[in-house]
Amino acid sequence: MNMPDNNERNRPIGIFDSGVGGLTVMAEVIRHLPNEDIVYFGDVGRCPYGGLSKETIIQFARQDIRFLLEHNVKYIIAACNSVSAVALDTVKKEFDIDILGVISPGAKAATDYTKNRRVGVIGTVATIGSNSYGNEIQRLNNDIKLFSLACPLFVPLAEEGYLDKEATRLIAHDYLKTLIDVDIDTLVLGCTHYPLLKNVIARVMGNNVKLVDSA
Amino acid sequence: MNMPDNNERNRPIGIFDSGVGGLTVMAEVIRHLPNEDIVYFGDVGRCPYGGLSKETIIQFARQDIRFLLEHNVKYIIAACNSVSAVALDTVKKEFDIDILGVISPGAKAATDYTKNRRVGVIGTVATIGSNSYGNEIQRLNNDIKLFSLACPLFVPLAEEGYLDKEATRLIAHDYLKTLIDVDIDTLVLGCTHYPLLKNVIARVMGNNVKLVDSA
Repeated sequence: MNMPDNNERNRPIGIFDSGVGGLTVMAEVIRHLPNEDIVYFGDVGRCPYGGLSKETIIQFARQDIRFLLEHNVKYIIAACNSVSAVALDTVKKEFDIDILGVISPGAKAATDYTKNRRVGVIGTVATIGSNSYGNEIQRLNNDIKLFSLACPLFVPLAEEGYLDKEATRLIAHDYLKTLIDVDIDTLVLGCTHYPLLKNVIARVMGNNVKLVDSA
Repeated sequence: MNMPDNNERNRPIGIFDSGVGGLTVMAEVIRHLPNEDIVYFGDVGRCPYGGLSKETIIQFARQDIRFLLEHNVKYIIAACNSVSAVALDTVKKEFDIDILGVISPGAKAATDYTKNRRVGVIGTVATIGSNSYGNEIQRLNNDIKLFSLACPLFVPLAEEGYLDKEATRLIAHDYLKTLIDVDIDTLVLGCTHYPLLKNVIARVMGNNVKLVDSA
């Protein structure tokens, strides 16, 4: 085993996700911090997390964090919305290292963009059930009205490569029709898989709704 | 804690599944053995198992079995095709109790039914990747030609209640078209969720294909 390198600057940033969705977050980190080393852990053997119970997601997040700590990371990004939404507060207290989530940046972008102060959020059952986006957006701007919706089939559809197919459009329309009716101007794609379905979602929501992703 | 009841007859049968799909198996057990007590464990907090790695499925199966053993069961039925397919051999060696799977009954029913000795099997990635149905069917009848196919979206569609919708029909047609072309007369629904989609699957496959489920 190598001796730990205590020079903070030279230590890598740790990023983890339930699978490969967090690679979109990693791409953004590299774009902003091109000189940093990164250790990425994608838990593809247990992906996806979004339909799991809160207790299971916290348990898996602990294991992912311990894995990254073995690689001497200087801080950790939970690049999974479900983890950020339901496990972040718990694991932050348990580990002596900074752990960042992806809820705050997405909430900030939506708050900055909306003109009519009507924002939609879609995500996994875990993320939507936690109301993390709602809490964060309302903390930033108490005037914003939030409409949130779980879309459990979007992750399996994205994983199966059903990105731009008629079946996906029908399912997206079923899910999103309630959001079309409430006149939002901004929709947060609150899951790292959803940008893969951006074309279908944009077509269903129409040109007047800005899509904001967490990467 | 109660003292264990060592009278085998009075002890319950243990059944477990990744979720509620195995309740179809439990219904059949009750029909055949109406006087038996049953302890059913559905791991809904971590459902579904079918896309997980073999190692993870084995680990979860061990935990499910330990839970049932705490309830003093006399034998155990793994009512999940993915567990039966990839974990059964391993856990049978590890535990000092009879553990039955659902592969053999489905394979037997298909072998009995087929006239043209051309059988299809659909299931999760774990089940199909293991070739457990293929091995069992070929053990029963070496002349049968098997066509197997993973249908990863069927479990999430069934769980979301997309049982008889146009999107489901489109996806089923995408998956099953290769099986239509190879002239099978029997199709094993190798996952406890799939009977929920039986209408759609039957419509896509046509009247000449008998559907066999594992319950």
